[in-house]
Amino acid sequence: MGIKAFAPASIGNLGIGFDILGMAIERPGDEVVARKSDTPGVRIVKITGHGGKLPYETEQNTAGMAALRLLEFLGETGRGIELEIHKKMPLGSGLGSSAASAAAAVLAVSELLRTGLSKRELLPFAHAGEQVATGSLQADNVAPSLLGGIVLIRDNATLDVHRLHAPRGLYATVVHPHFEVLTRDARAILKPEVPLADYVRQSANVAGFVVGCYTGDVALIGRSLRDIIIEPQRAGLIPGFYEVQSAAMAEGVLGCSISGSGPSVFALSANSLIAENAGLVMQKAFARHGIESDVFVSPVNQEGAVIC
Amino acid sequence: MGIKAFAPASIGNLGIGFDILGMAIERPGDEVVARKSDTPGVRIVKITGHGGKLPYETEQNTAGMAALRLLEFLGETGRGIELEIHKKMPLGSGLGSSAASAAAAVLAVSELLRTGLSKRELLPFAHAGEQVATGSLQADNVAPSLLGGIVLIRDNATLDVHRLHAPRGLYATVVHPHFEVLTRDARAILKPEVPLADYVRQSANVAGFVVGCYTGDVALIGRSLRDIIIEPQRAGLIPGFYEVQSAAMAEGVLGCSISGSGPSVFALSANSLIAENAGLVMQKAFARHGIESDVFVSPVNQEGAVIC
Repeated sequence: MGIKAFAPASIGNLGIGFDILGMAIERPGDEVVARKSDTPGVRIVKITGHGGKLPYETEQNTAGMAALRLLEFLGETGRGIELEIHKKMPLGSGLGSSAASAAAAVLAVSELLRTGLSKRELLPFAHAGEQVATGSLQADNVAPSLLGGIVLIRDNATLDVHRLHAPRGLYATVVHPHFEVLTRDARAILKPEVPLADYVRQSANVAGFVVGCYTGDVALIGRSLRDIIIEPQRAGLIPGFYEVQSAAMAEGVLGCSISGSGPSVFALSANSLIAENAGLVMQKAFARHGIESDVFVSPVNQEGAVIC
Repeated sequence: MGIKAFAPASIGNLGIGFDILGMAIERPGDEVVARKSDTPGVRIVKITGHGGKLPYETEQNTAGMAALRLLEFLGETGRGIELEIHKKMPLGSGLGSSAASAAAAVLAVSELLRTGLSKRELLPFAHAGEQVATGSLQADNVAPSLLGGIVLIRDNATLDVHRLHAPRGLYATVVHPHFEVLTRDARAILKPEVPLADYVRQSANVAGFVVGCYTGDVALIGRSLRDIIIEPQRAGLIPGFYEVQSAAMAEGVLGCSISGSGPSVFALSANSLIAENAGLVMQKAFARHGIESDVFVSPVNQEGAVIC
């Protein structure tokens, strides 16, 4: 009798697009089951998988808050809703875990209540849910997780988001090393200022990346995927990062950088063969530092969150 | 017996794209006539119009140096070439005057010598000519002046330039107030660092502008045309700038900022009517500060430099 939704992991920032670009991948992802209940309010009744640390209190849980925000919008806060959250990816991985739970929750509840709202219309509630529960203001994970695709967030406050045209054949490799980086720590180390010359170069690269997406110029995407601002400041949080990156580049990937605030490292490739090979060498490079990791290879996930 | 080429003025930076975006307009522009001569070397034999201060020495003249660089590439430095330069726009106007002369010069000489080179192939010589003569490293004027269109310069060193798709109906208004701002002065006042938050916002706007160009979303172009980094630092060089800008915005333009390093001010509009009206009110706003000005209204010039 419940409705189950799946929302995928996402690569925040995409290296050059700090806080403004994100891309959905096919897996991993989180599942949320929503069910009607006679007890008013949103209650989280089950959390499985990587969710050991997650709170059952609705107001502190990203999925719970997202569902609550949607009910408020619908004027249905008297409704009884039970949520099960099945975490298929770890927290603090740089894969947008809390965003995926929020995205899956709004979609499941919307379907359960037959709201008829589009995923674009549901985005504010998923975003607000994630924001309240985690303090994150950026929609560069929740927007691609819910909507799918490669997404530009022009403005977080107004959720002025745009799915870019994604070239055929573009593949992502994501390697998740088994340790945690807290987003707030990764943010705290960033210098508050950027050299003007670096700003110019990086804004040119962001623009080049967007042009490459629309024109299908994967070589241009490759030349543009060079983060000279954030990556150098965060690389030190990830032991062996530069070796992992070099290994990927040697396989012919278009670019390789940090997913979200890390520690996951991503690469984009022009085809699945390069993406697969890159995953193997990236995993080996982490292993040389005594770090185990998981590898995910995926085309651009154009669907985003789905009912399953 | 000579070949005459015309190259148009251009809007450098386009506000949000400091050093990386430029757009060609239809007029004004410079003309260069190239003629064969029995005397080896490139000689400038005539300069008319706004060129009173321009040097006749080939190596110090942007058109002369551009022609020389082309001859060097062709292995034809023994050739005798005479150039006439007809300046139809003032120096230090923010309209890319020196770039237009360089663009016109390479096109005229290329046609004269029947090189068969494309304008894209001629760009390095126009760029090098402008660079040597003026010290400018940025191609955000010379690329649109030669190639036409709205151009992204992803990298100046390799001239990784890309003409963006330009939405139908997009019009530029350029108001040139009658005083000069030296590019080096306008550069000298820029702070060497940019706040991280401003970098994020502006890079999102640059990306939004590019998306708007490709998708024809002029409202998105409008929301994106907000320069929070360079404009506030340079506005003080242009008396009445904010009144000029406000007047344009009140007419419904998509955005309004400084053309190149100023003092010209540009606006982009979704149609010619708004662009014409904006020109009138912008001119009046300058007049209230006792400043005379010229107004140019133009669609995106898709041709760039042409033989005429």
